[in-house]
Amino acid sequence: MSSTYHEEYAEGLLDHARKELLAISAATEINVHEVPGAFEIPLVVQAIARAGNVDAIIAFGLIMEGQTAHATLISTAVTDGLMRIALMTGIPVVHEVLVVINEEQARARCIDDQLNRGTEAARVAMRMAQVMDEFSTEAGR
Amino acid sequence: MSSTYHEEYAEGLLDHARKELLAISAATEINVHEVPGAFEIPLVVQAIARAGNVDAIIAFGLIMEGQTAHATLISTAVTDGLMRIALMTGIPVVHEVLVVINEEQARARCIDDQLNRGTEAARVAMRMAQVMDEFSTEAGR
Amino acid sequence: MSSTYHEEYAEGLLDHARKELLAISAATEINVHEVPGAFEIPLVVQAIARAGNVDAIIAFGLIMEGQTAHATLISTAVTDGLMRIALMTGIPVVHEVLVVINEEQARARCIDDQLNRGTEAARVAMRMAQVMDEFSTEAGR
Amino acid sequence: MSSTYHEEYAEGLLDHARKELLAISAATEINVHEVPGAFEIPLVVQAIARAGNVDAIIAFGLIMEGQTAHATLISTAVTDGLMRIALMTGIPVVHEVLVVINEEQARARCIDDQLNRGTEAARVAMRMAQVMDEFSTEAGR
Amino acid sequence: MSSTYHEEYAEGLLDHARKELLAISAATEINVHEVPGAFEIPLVVQAIARAGNVDAIIAFGLIMEGQTAHATLISTAVTDGLMRIALMTGIPVVHEVLVVINEEQARARCIDDQLNRGTEAARVAMRMAQVMDEFSTEAGR
Repeated sequence: MSSTYHEEYAEGLLDHARKELLAISAATEINVHEVPGAFEIPLVVQAIARAGNVDAIIAFGLIMEGQTAHATLISTAVTDGLMRIALMTGIPVVHEVLVVINEEQARARCIDDQLNRGTEAARVAMRMAQVMDEFSTEAGR
Repeated sequence: MSSTYHEEYAEGLLDHARKELLAISAATEINVHEVPGAFEIPLVVQAIARAGNVDAIIAFGLIMEGQTAHATLISTAVTDGLMRIALMTGIPVVHEVLVVINEEQARARCIDDQLNRGTEAARVAMRMAQVMDEFSTEAGR
Repeated sequence: MSSTYHEEYAEGLLDHARKELLAISAATEINVHEVPGAFEIPLVVQAIARAGNVDAIIAFGLIMEGQTAHATLISTAVTDGLMRIALMTGIPVVHEVLVVINEEQARARCIDDQLNRGTEAARVAMRMAQVMDEFSTEAGR
Repeated sequence: MSSTYHEEYAEGLLDHARKELLAISAATEINVHEVPGAFEIPLVVQAIARAGNVDAIIAFGLIMEGQTAHATLISTAVTDGLMRIALMTGIPVVHEVLVVINEEQARARCIDDQLNRGTEAARVAMRMAQVMDEFSTEAGR
Repeated sequence: MSSTYHEEYAEGLLDHARKELLAISAATEINVHEVPGAFEIPLVVQAIARAGNVDAIIAFGLIMEGQTAHATLISTAVTDGLMRIALMTGIPVVHEVLVVINEEQARARCIDDQLNRGTEAARVAMRMAQVMDEFSTEAGR
């Protein structure tokens, strides 16, 4: 999932995540859902989690801090929402809704390779899918 | 919905939203509910959501930061409330309860055309109605 | 309801609210419950809301910021509590638990006429009672 | 209840509270439970509330702000937890988990007589027990 | 449990905790689960709590504050999540997801002996297991 607000950065995150997910396992099935704004991310994440058949969800987004408190309000509510969805559904939700203060920070995290949060998110998602799978296997025995 | 506290700005947001909603689809049905203060917004949004028959709700409001912590407290609780209503009802709630520090910021976001949050909100609402509709269609199949 | 901690200010808020409530409608029935501290307000508001037969609740209180983080912690939890009670019960809860940094701010909001939050609260409460009544009338049809 | 982390201050709060509780009513029954850290307070408060047979709970604790954000994180979660327990159980929970920045602040609030939060807490607890009792009496009629 | 993000520090916490747990009671049974990031900690803690057969859970993690608001967002949501899991399951969850601003702070809390949070966490966990056990014993009588 990616917020369409900052198209280029979202694409950067998505490309890096896709590449890493397939590098870890070539058979990884990836579905992408776009949402029009950051505040809307949790509602769509919840819909995906409830539709079932996913091992993990990565929430990508980019919030640029502006002149008002809006970015802080939105990012806090989104973070809280993602946590609650994970706890309610038991499905790992990787939080990559980034808050940045300028284009340079956005570029470093979304487009460049070194600190890319997309790559990082892919690894966390794959690992968490495995961790949670072990719990449900134990519970099923 | 709009807080009546800062009448002129609320009207600016509403007019821009209405224009954009009808530009996207001339058949859009729009209902407006007024609330007397920002803290009251979530309760009315929840009542609208529960009454059913809406595809999305836009919450407009304007909170002017003053000399006390009141604006921060209210805006945080409103943001949290709107998120929880969206997650509980599954109906998109577009958050446009803006926190500004002066008239200039309010004017730019509510009355002027360029950064108008009403126009932005309309686009997000229309897109989210579509996104959520796809999920319920899939679930219904 | 009023916190007894800062008696004089609480009385100022209450007097202004009572006067305005009766000015809007002479038949308004007003019940006052006192609580010994700000953190205790939500519990009593919840008890009032659950006892039924109220159209709106106004929560008055005054928190003076001191040398520690206590005021911020308490006011945040109170705000959050009031919002949750409103959303859970469907009864409007007007938030007038004010956080001030000195006597001058308290006086302007609680005792003086011009910015009096008691007067403001009365208007919001009366208007919200009407707004929510329309929703329940529609739901009942 | 008292956090054992800062023994001397906790004892100061407890002694003042005990003295005031018995001064208000010599028949007051007081039970003390110790918890090893501030973050653990809500869990034990909840256990006490659920065990029943209490009219009010006072949560004493002292969090010393350090070089990291830990104190803020913990105190916010504790405050939120105590509020939720009060609202869920209907039992008054007096919040005296204090956040201080130095020994002087701690001493003034916990050990000295003038601003002692233990004395204050005792009065709030006794008053709240009475307030809530009136609600349940009305509900029972 | 430990976040694998800062391997060396997590190991330091874990070693100190293990040593202290066994010093308090040589028969202590210790299970370790690794999670790939701090935001993922609550989901795994919840899975452990629900799987049952634990007396207490210690959540170790290290969040390094960076140039963006990410650390604050994540640490707040994690703290809130851990509190809610403890209150929901009744199992003590010791919060040692530390937020630091530099390597020096991390080293002092995770690797050095004097202020080691692992040692501290072990004591809190052992004590809390005992405290909660007393409550359930009383409830069972």
